[in-house]
Amino acid sequence: MFQEAESDPALSQAEFKKIESHLRVQLVNEQYKHINRQDRALLIMIAGIDGAGKGDTINLLNEWMDPRHVHTIAFPPPAKADHAYPAAHRFWMSLPPKGEIGIVFGSGYTALFEEAAKKSLDADKLENHILFVRRFEANLAANGIQVLKLWFHLSREAQNARIEQREANPSTAWQIDKSDLRAQKKFKSIRRAGQLIIEATDAPHAPWVIIPSADPQLRTVRTAQAVLASLKAPIAKVPAFHDPAAATSLKRPVNPLDKLDYSATIPKQDYDTQILQWQNRLAVAMRQKKFRKHALAVVFEGPDAAGKGGAIRRVTRAIDARQFNIMPVSAPKPAELARPYLWRFWRNVPSKGRVAIFDRSWYGRVLVERVEKLIPRPTWFRAYDEINDFEQQLTKHGVIVLKFWLAITPQEQLKRFREREHSPYKQFKITPDDWRNRKKWKTYSTAAKEMFSHTNTPLAPWHVISANDKRHARIEVLKQIVLALEKAHD
Amino acid sequence: MFQEAESDPALSQAEFKKIESHLRVQLVNEQYKHINRQDRALLIMIAGIDGAGKGDTINLLNEWMDPRHVHTIAFPPPAKADHAYPAAHRFWMSLPPKGEIGIVFGSGYTALFEEAAKKSLDADKLENHILFVRRFEANLAANGIQVLKLWFHLSREAQNARIEQREANPSTAWQIDKSDLRAQKKFKSIRRAGQLIIEATDAPHAPWVIIPSADPQLRTVRTAQAVLASLKAPIAKVPAFHDPAAATSLKRPVNPLDKLDYSATIPKQDYDTQILQWQNRLAVAMRQKKFRKHALAVVFEGPDAAGKGGAIRRVTRAIDARQFNIMPVSAPKPAELARPYLWRFWRNVPSKGRVAIFDRSWYGRVLVERVEKLIPRPTWFRAYDEINDFEQQLTKHGVIVLKFWLAITPQEQLKRFREREHSPYKQFKITPDDWRNRKKWKTYSTAAKEMFSHTNTPLAPWHVISANDKRHARIEVLKQIVLALEKAHD
Repeated sequence: MFQEAESDPALSQAEFKKIESHLRVQLVNEQYKHINRQDRALLIMIAGIDGAGKGDTINLLNEWMDPRHVHTIAFPPPAKADHAYPAAHRFWMSLPPKGEIGIVFGSGYTALFEEAAKKSLDADKLENHILFVRRFEANLAANGIQVLKLWFHLSREAQNARIEQREANPSTAWQIDKSDLRAQKKFKSIRRAGQLIIEATDAPHAPWVIIPSADPQLRTVRTAQAVLASLKAPIAKVPAFHDPAAATSLKRPVNPLDKLDYSATIPKQDYDTQILQWQNRLAVAMRQKKFRKHALAVVFEGPDAAGKGGAIRRVTRAIDARQFNIMPVSAPKPAELARPYLWRFWRNVPSKGRVAIFDRSWYGRVLVERVEKLIPRPTWFRAYDEINDFEQQLTKHGVIVLKFWLAITPQEQLKRFREREHSPYKQFKITPDDWRNRKKWKTYSTAAKEMFSHTNTPLAPWHVISANDKRHARIEVLKQIVLALEKAHD
Repeated sequence: MFQEAESDPALSQAEFKKIESHLRVQLVNEQYKHINRQDRALLIMIAGIDGAGKGDTINLLNEWMDPRHVHTIAFPPPAKADHAYPAAHRFWMSLPPKGEIGIVFGSGYTALFEEAAKKSLDADKLENHILFVRRFEANLAANGIQVLKLWFHLSREAQNARIEQREANPSTAWQIDKSDLRAQKKFKSIRRAGQLIIEATDAPHAPWVIIPSADPQLRTVRTAQAVLASLKAPIAKVPAFHDPAAATSLKRPVNPLDKLDYSATIPKQDYDTQILQWQNRLAVAMRQKKFRKHALAVVFEGPDAAGKGGAIRRVTRAIDARQFNIMPVSAPKPAELARPYLWRFWRNVPSKGRVAIFDRSWYGRVLVERVEKLIPRPTWFRAYDEINDFEQQLTKHGVIVLKFWLAITPQEQLKRFREREHSPYKQFKITPDDWRNRKKWKTYSTAAKEMFSHTNTPLAPWHVISANDKRHARIEVLKQIVLALEKAHD
């Protein structure tokens, strides 16, 4: 795989001059088409042997294209604050919007590379990292992000020569630091890691291109050609990525809504006592020192007027207002539409020790977006896996993910809609949309049913609660949260 | 000032019921008008005596209004990461977009309150905090954010009674923590601090309203009334806030552009040596441990084709790509238009140890927005002070702010435009806008001249550089950055 690159091929000045001008014109023209198409972003990942001129190449891409639409995303080594979020968080936060180009440089896939460069490989760990990258890239590619990965490579001799040359020159000696010298020693292990990772993560929708880097002119040309090809390529079809480990074991063969006992109620008097008790236990659990190693993400879904808002307020009443955020989810804004749909939820993921409450959620992808036919079937069907993967990343990082479906009967909804219409301060809660959605009750139920069977995972199960009696629903919600917290602290 | 509140007035259940319904309807109706007007956001700041029911009131506002458009901004105590930015940074990052309501709760003005509550006041420090708040609020109010400040107050006896009552009840005892008990002891000092701050920062565009809080029903009504009045109030006129300390001492009576020697050149050979030397010094300075206490913000302004991009690349070449970000500034996006104009720049302020490069900048407010008549005169005129204040906040936090104006003659610009038109890979750099702007050369020069005289501050002076010779300009830019860094490290 590295044969050509390790023969350190070069391009003469004359040849370079001949190619350069045409290549630059093509590149900038394709970039402008890309900007105007507005249906995808390009994400370029930079990796390879140290001392191969990665930094220079980034400068070059900025020089050859319109730099206002090129964003270099340079990850510094993860600071302490970053451990507050799952590893993928800062990746998601840096995704370029459609029409733009992002270049990721630095320690993007550090964990994977470090694992792959170890003397004695831990096959399980390595596989996990690789699966993570594959899923991540499939997710990006399927959601409008074209991925191109460049591996800068040269022979060991050429690496030595480049480092010595720079060391000898006082004006470039600063470019060499200890990590370069270490890298020089580690040529073999980095080479092996590269080979392994390229083989494991090369895909039509996220291809690796090896750039021979001993000669700056050839490196430049090959890089520009790779970017050009990527800009010209049609939008990649992404094969469904199904992670059998993530999804299946809790699959419910029947619709939990069918079995639900809608008659469950709690008398007012019992409710008044119980709600305070659960709120008290919640407050105590939240104040545990152990909670700083966790975070809480609570999802509320269900038909309009199911009582999501009221349940949320009963929860938040027991939590210090400085510790939680509520994300009300409605139609995405332009900046959100310009990124994969999970982006806006990644933005609202709670950091350690905090609570995020989602009033509706990422499940809109397989509910409203499906029912309203805003996206084609393969897109929402793929979302089941994307969502399971997302939730798995959260739970593996210590986030407790609780998903509530507040279920009401159509009769109860109608009663509440009428009440809202007649209550002067609840009128704002009822809109023509609500009546429209109501007509699609059956379609929504089908979507919900399929959602339960695909996303009821062991790490993040659904809690389907009868909410015909609001008191019953509120107590159930509080109880499940408290029990989950107490279990996590045990 | 606290006379009424300390008499602990109450509202009977009957009176409350009579008012409640009408008030809720009015409130939610006004909120809907607010959402649809889209010309301002409302920011409610919550402060006052501990134990006065601030948290309950926030829940209430979420209950009485459409909570999807109410954002509770609960600042946790500043974490270590926050010291990476000036104190105002997280405030700016939390501003609600137009049409929405933000509620700030927690340690928003902590520094000010702590200072004001000290036994022995430090008049200078206190004045600085107060001036900061005044400027900040004037800035918000002038840029589309309506500010309302609520001070929750009750008598010492009522505070004691409330705390004892909650302690006695096992279901609410958790609400009392050590800071409440400390606060109880400090009633007097917090009361004094409140009085001082309310007097010092009460303004028509950012009024304080004192809410008697001993009785929950009266507290509720008064809060809702205050919010209602704020939503109904016309957009406040903000008096010009001029901070004489920030702006004047470096004022240049003449236009630096008039005096400029456009013939300055550097021969190619000297340039090749010098550029490497300065890049080397820059790289060394950036790697100093001392730099971690600073940050670098570099602004590039000047006519089209003055060579900003080329100069930026000569700077970034000497810096580790993981350490800097470039912000290319063009027309603001919808999310940016929905906030005060400085918001998008606050978002890109460098954290400690990092470099932010602005390819055009906040000075667009007094250049393109003025010249193209996108905003009225008072608005851009006020921006001089807002900008000086912004830069002062950065520099006081250790950020080195360098502002470069790359100056070229109209003849040189014409030559470069023609070159661009004929260079196939520079064509994208020239647009009809550039020719249009060129016709307004004189107007832009006038705007630039006034900008220099108003914003050439001691802490963030302008460097006006002849860029008719690109080599000369690039060396000058690098040199000024290096000298500023070396000076800061001394």
